[in-house]
Amino acid sequence: MTVQTLENVGELAQQLRVDSIRCSTAAGSGHPTSSMSAADVMAALLARHLRYDWQQPDNPANDHLIFSKGHASPLLYSMFKAAGVISDDELMTGYRRFGSRLEGHPTPVLPWVDVATGSLGQGLPDGVGVALAGRYLDELPYRVWVLCGDSEMAEGSMWEALDKAAYYRLGNLIAIVDVNRLGQRGPTELGWDLDAYTKRIEGFGCRPIAIDGHDLDEIDRALTSVAGAGQPTVILARTRKGRGFSEVEDREDWHGKPLPPEMAERAIVELGGERQLTVTGLPPEAASPRTRPSGEVRLPRYELGAKVATRLAFGQALAAVGALAEVVALDGEVGNSTHAEEFAKAYPERYFEMFIAEQQLVAAATGMSVRGYVPFAATFAAFFTRAYDFIRMAAISDANIRLCGSHAGVEIGADGPSQMALEDLAMMRAVRGSTVLYPSDAASAAQLVQEMADLAGVVYLRTTRGAYPVLYGRDEAFPVGGAKVVRSSPDDRVTLAGAGVTLHNCLAAADLLGRDGIHARVLDLYSVKPIDTETLLEAAAATGDRIVVVEDHYPQGGIGEAVLEALNDAGRSVRVAHLAVRGLPGSGTPAELMEAAGISGGHIVQAARDLLGA
Amino acid sequence: MTVQTLENVGELAQQLRVDSIRCSTAAGSGHPTSSMSAADVMAALLARHLRYDWQQPDNPANDHLIFSKGHASPLLYSMFKAAGVISDDELMTGYRRFGSRLEGHPTPVLPWVDVATGSLGQGLPDGVGVALAGRYLDELPYRVWVLCGDSEMAEGSMWEALDKAAYYRLGNLIAIVDVNRLGQRGPTELGWDLDAYTKRIEGFGCRPIAIDGHDLDEIDRALTSVAGAGQPTVILARTRKGRGFSEVEDREDWHGKPLPPEMAERAIVELGGERQLTVTGLPPEAASPRTRPSGEVRLPRYELGAKVATRLAFGQALAAVGALAEVVALDGEVGNSTHAEEFAKAYPERYFEMFIAEQQLVAAATGMSVRGYVPFAATFAAFFTRAYDFIRMAAISDANIRLCGSHAGVEIGADGPSQMALEDLAMMRAVRGSTVLYPSDAASAAQLVQEMADLAGVVYLRTTRGAYPVLYGRDEAFPVGGAKVVRSSPDDRVTLAGAGVTLHNCLAAADLLGRDGIHARVLDLYSVKPIDTETLLEAAAATGDRIVVVEDHYPQGGIGEAVLEALNDAGRSVRVAHLAVRGLPGSGTPAELMEAAGISGGHIVQAARDLLGA
Repeated sequence: MTVQTLENVGELAQQLRVDSIRCSTAAGSGHPTSSMSAADVMAALLARHLRYDWQQPDNPANDHLIFSKGHASPLLYSMFKAAGVISDDELMTGYRRFGSRLEGHPTPVLPWVDVATGSLGQGLPDGVGVALAGRYLDELPYRVWVLCGDSEMAEGSMWEALDKAAYYRLGNLIAIVDVNRLGQRGPTELGWDLDAYTKRIEGFGCRPIAIDGHDLDEIDRALTSVAGAGQPTVILARTRKGRGFSEVEDREDWHGKPLPPEMAERAIVELGGERQLTVTGLPPEAASPRTRPSGEVRLPRYELGAKVATRLAFGQALAAVGALAEVVALDGEVGNSTHAEEFAKAYPERYFEMFIAEQQLVAAATGMSVRGYVPFAATFAAFFTRAYDFIRMAAISDANIRLCGSHAGVEIGADGPSQMALEDLAMMRAVRGSTVLYPSDAASAAQLVQEMADLAGVVYLRTTRGAYPVLYGRDEAFPVGGAKVVRSSPDDRVTLAGAGVTLHNCLAAADLLGRDGIHARVLDLYSVKPIDTETLLEAAAATGDRIVVVEDHYPQGGIGEAVLEALNDAGRSVRVAHLAVRGLPGSGTPAELMEAAGISGGHIVQAARDLLGA
Repeated sequence: MTVQTLENVGELAQQLRVDSIRCSTAAGSGHPTSSMSAADVMAALLARHLRYDWQQPDNPANDHLIFSKGHASPLLYSMFKAAGVISDDELMTGYRRFGSRLEGHPTPVLPWVDVATGSLGQGLPDGVGVALAGRYLDELPYRVWVLCGDSEMAEGSMWEALDKAAYYRLGNLIAIVDVNRLGQRGPTELGWDLDAYTKRIEGFGCRPIAIDGHDLDEIDRALTSVAGAGQPTVILARTRKGRGFSEVEDREDWHGKPLPPEMAERAIVELGGERQLTVTGLPPEAASPRTRPSGEVRLPRYELGAKVATRLAFGQALAAVGALAEVVALDGEVGNSTHAEEFAKAYPERYFEMFIAEQQLVAAATGMSVRGYVPFAATFAAFFTRAYDFIRMAAISDANIRLCGSHAGVEIGADGPSQMALEDLAMMRAVRGSTVLYPSDAASAAQLVQEMADLAGVVYLRTTRGAYPVLYGRDEAFPVGGAKVVRSSPDDRVTLAGAGVTLHNCLAAADLLGRDGIHARVLDLYSVKPIDTETLLEAAAATGDRIVVVEDHYPQGGIGEAVLEALNDAGRSVRVAHLAVRGLPGSGTPAELMEAAGISGGHIVQAARDLLGA
């Protein structure tokens, strides 16, 4: 039987409840009660409003369904069963099991899932990115439906999302808040006060619709009303957690707990037994995404020795890479500092101002990557710490996003420690599958920006505030995972390895050492992750296992530890002199601060001499 | 001349403008225009409303003044000059200079500054913590005044702060938003639309007052009206950036730029010249914080071999440490999982529910530490990534906060990767001055919780979901910076080092190796930072430089790299077999997931055998 009429929707909702109970009881864990509260709304959406070709999840005209409350995965997977794309057997034997694609919280190992959720407050911001792509890039009529929990409305990121959704007039975005009034450990902050939610949502420029989330007529009217909306809709569905099973309905202490088998049996009886309904649903409109022609990328060229900041080269190269039609740029209200604004000048229609909302900045990039765009998001390197949870989750989503953090290290000077990124390399290296790049000159920065467009996963580029000499010629290549031997001779006795600004300090140190007849090899570790183990090993072998590593970053998790890990993994024990920022910097000039931090040319000379016993 | 009348306030405001220009022009950097917009409001506050004993900044009854828009430091420091606590000479020669306490953005190296700001959207959340302490802990009548920028209202954290401020009825908190309509790169999202701000603020349960931020009468009335408020006040001051100097007033492209000297001269003339007014201001009320008697800490005791989760031991020990009257606990709506709720049962009046708002969770702890409390904030380890910018800034603030992250690693099992903290050790190690602890059993967890109460800086405790055997007796001590040799013999040929759950895997591996006659030394690296280099060196020396390090964390920045760094720093090159999580885990049982990640006892055995060539 297929579902279309509203009467059938009620039956479907009961099936979703029963299946949510069955699969979580079978797994011995999961969140059935959080699924049961939203079952009516999701049944109506699935049967009568979602435009989705279940056989072609990559149809660009499909609507999008994101479970921001990812813990309601039993409900989502029960919907997939009702849609006929997973079997009852898979649901019952796969849910939360090792090796199964039906994970505890949804991830895109499933073709019908756009983004990984489970860290609350992220599905809606991600959905904003998908909706931005739909409205401004794809120019497709798809809608983005996001099921949110009421507890997660306490996350500031949800308000960043609604704010941006309203600012960009995302009428194609519909958030459905499952207001079941109970969080994990007790009542939510606002309970069933839909008026309070309504005021907040109106204040943020979105259109609230408060409904009884168990009244199928009200639900259907609300879901119908979103058609042609000029602003985002937020459906506030007043619901009861555990709805439909009297022993748990609207009771505390039932969050995240499967029903024991005997209870599950009673629940299934009360809910009318198992069903095997299948939903046809609505097909997507026949439509194709707007296509734009790509041009040829002509990277900026820099004169050897000219002083150019890598952040400027980033902006100029980004504008050049904009010749590729899928490339998109996002700014955290500092585009004139990161130089992302260079892209805005060339391609204003593919440039998105996210204002000072770094979580939404990254989430929008993640959402755009769902639709195959190539987003570059830029802000100060220090401020990506604000979005670390989003970056971590982007990696779990297998999203392809490119992040550029400018103004890294004590090198920024007078602005002081709040603006210095001294933890960003540690943070970004620890992200699964990430690539971490840190060019020292404009030529390499530009080349790496072009490569970033083709890289998968989370890719991070660290740029420097100040202008330093261009070191490389026009035809030099900078493969990811490589390193450059910037200076070498057969007489090298010590290796000086840096990246970014510290490479220039290494070169200054090599000059000073050279005056005393000490030849030093200089390595540019522009690819921090993956790091070029082979070049490190060669340099170590050529210079008597004497390596100085210098970084404008705290000692933990940065370049020094990356070098130690690489050498160790290669089975080679090399003593490394590790210069890094160890105290709390203040304000000053870049030179003063690098001197005080112990990462200046003079310190490198001393470290090299210590290694040499000279 | 001292300032009291409103006419004089106008003069004072001009002085603040002139001094903001003078100091930033002298420094060659800074944000004079962002200072000039707020000068009228700050002059009125300083002269007629702030209750502050400038000679005794540690007077507990003092009001608090926090510049959430930390880039307006020229204005803040000009206020300090007007208050007579810094000299004109210090302002002119110190601002943004190396070694000076007048840093580019305020930090608590200044005795009148509570918290470091400069990463936008943090001063108000921190202020919520100070106001919580005032109302619920100190029970003092002090007010917390927070100057906010309009751009930073785009940060979700500002709305987390207003939400919690309203929830806790913080009538002692007054946010002043300097609505100068211009951000760094252009107009703000809402411009001068005070109505839009008003609706949002009302929706979030606070009391908005919209005023002309250059009308001294309106300002004075607004500042007066906050007395006795039962809810937080948000003064929306419509202002003009660069107010008072016609060449820059309300113009774009003047953010973060000092006036060139000739322009500064013209500006000072237009503003009526230099002044040297001094403000007396209002004294704080004569009042003392409520004092509570401290009792004796009686830690929970655990039977050797009993299976107890370290997260439970954390909660029980936290409740025990609650005997110390300054100890406070904060929850991110997961207190029944982290077991922070054990504290709530014993000391509900010192337990603060922050709901699912991890940024505010950490900021509240930072704010409470300003008043000398000993806050412990707990959530899932994975979700502290949400607050990394706040943790980083807490370290710059020299705040003393204790964070407990539970459910760390693939060990959590079925919930999947969104809930696994596989980056937290990297993130926390990279924080300046941090302490990172990771106990493997309940006895050590309890001891470490007690030690945390006395530790300065950012202290992080990582706990495990599952229950594992108690390994240590009642009298065992666990000094920070130490490690335990859990198993050793004179015949040890390899060292197995773990922490948390992997220590149990190391013990299982040692058993297996022992069956084949291979003696293994087992180290418990419960103190990840600082790490016990001496014990590592001894173990290396005793076991032929063969060390296996195992961690339930990604390889970057965690325990393995900490060991490599420590050995390298000690001048000892030891080959380490480093077992860590390297792929993207899914759901499963803890055993399945540790096996798949390559960190099980079996993998440790194999790694040890490989090192031994056996």
